[in-house]
Amino acid sequence: MKRSEPEARVRLQQAAVELFRERGYDRVTAAEIAGRAGVTERTFFRHFADKREVLFDGQAVLMDALTAAIADAPAELGPLDMLFRAFRSVTTLLEDNRPFSKPRQEVISATPALQERELSKLEALSDALALALRARGVPELPAALAARAGMTCFAQATLAWLEDDQPGLAERLDLTKRALKSII
Amino acid sequence: MKRSEPEARVRLQQAAVELFRERGYDRVTAAEIAGRAGVTERTFFRHFADKREVLFDGQAVLMDALTAAIADAPAELGPLDMLFRAFRSVTTLLEDNRPFSKPRQEVISATPALQERELSKLEALSDALALALRARGVPELPAALAARAGMTCFAQATLAWLEDDQPGLAERLDLTKRALKSII
Repeated sequence: MKRSEPEARVRLQQAAVELFRERGYDRVTAAEIAGRAGVTERTFFRHFADKREVLFDGQAVLMDALTAAIADAPAELGPLDMLFRAFRSVTTLLEDNRPFSKPRQEVISATPALQERELSKLEALSDALALALRARGVPELPAALAARAGMTCFAQATLAWLEDDQPGLAERLDLTKRALKSII
Repeated sequence: MKRSEPEARVRLQQAAVELFRERGYDRVTAAEIAGRAGVTERTFFRHFADKREVLFDGQAVLMDALTAAIADAPAELGPLDMLFRAFRSVTTLLEDNRPFSKPRQEVISATPALQERELSKLEALSDALALALRARGVPELPAALAARAGMTCFAQATLAWLEDDQPGLAERLDLTKRALKSII
C-alpha cells in the first residue's frame, strides 16, 4: 500500500525530531531520517531542501494564517492591535501542534546552526507581517517596527508556553503585550 | 619592521571587505585576505575564528559601550529611554567607522550566510542589553522586550543611515523612537 505524500511529510518531521533528540542534530543524516520514516532518502529531499528545513515546515502555514488575519482585521485597529489579533487567531493551531513543537524547540535550543536558521525564519516572518501592515495603510517605518516588536512578543510568549503550558498561550500573549506597553 | 598586532587586525578587516566586494564572499579565502593584508594565514586565524568573524569584530566594542551606558543611566529613566540614551552615546563611534561600515554592510546584505551571522550577533547584543536593563531593576519580560524593540530601532536607524547619511544618525534614532512610541 502506497502511503500518501502529506503523511510521509509528517512522518519525516516526527522521525527527524525523534532522531535529533536521541543523538543530537549533527549525528543524524537525512538518509537515517528517511529510514526511520519508512521512505527513501530521495523522498526526503523531494519534501525538504536540506536537513535543517525539516524542522521549519510549519512556518509557512503560520505566515499565511497571520498575514490573512491582518488582511481581515477591522480598519480602526492600530498596528499592534492588528498583530495581536492575528496572534490570537493562531493559538488553537499552535495548541494542536504543541506535542510536536515542544520537542522540536528543545532540539533547536540545543543546536546553534538551528538557532541561526530560526532567527532568519523569524526575520522573514517579521518582513511578511510588515508587508501585511503596509497593505493596511501603516507607513513603512512604524510597520517595520511594529512587526518586529510584535514578533518578539509572539516568540517570547510561545517559547515560555512551550516550556510550561500554564498560563496558556492566549494569556501569555496578553502578558507580553502589557509588558511591551510598560516599557515606554 | 614588524608591524603591530592591532594594525594587522585592522588591515585584515579592510582587506576582507575589499576582497569580498571585488569577488563576492564565497570566492575569497582566508589565505587571500591575509595575503592582501601582508600577513600570513596563521596570523589571520590568530585574530579571527573563521572567515565570517572578520566582519563582526566591532560588535564587541559596541556591546561594551552600550552596556556601560545603561549601567550609567539616571535611575529615573524608563527602559526605553535608558536604551536610546545608550544608542546616542555611540553615534560618534559609528560615525567615525562609517567609511568601513558602509561597504561592510553592502557585503553582508549580498550574502545570506553573513545575514544569518548578523542576526545572531544582534540577538546576542539584545541579550546583553536585556541583562544590563535587569541590572538596573527592570523585570525580566519588559527588559527582554525593551532590549529587542530597542535593538530593532537601532538596527533600522543605522541601516538607513549607512545607505544615506542625511538625516544624520542621531536624528534617525529619534525618528525610530517616535515611530516605536506611535505604535504602542
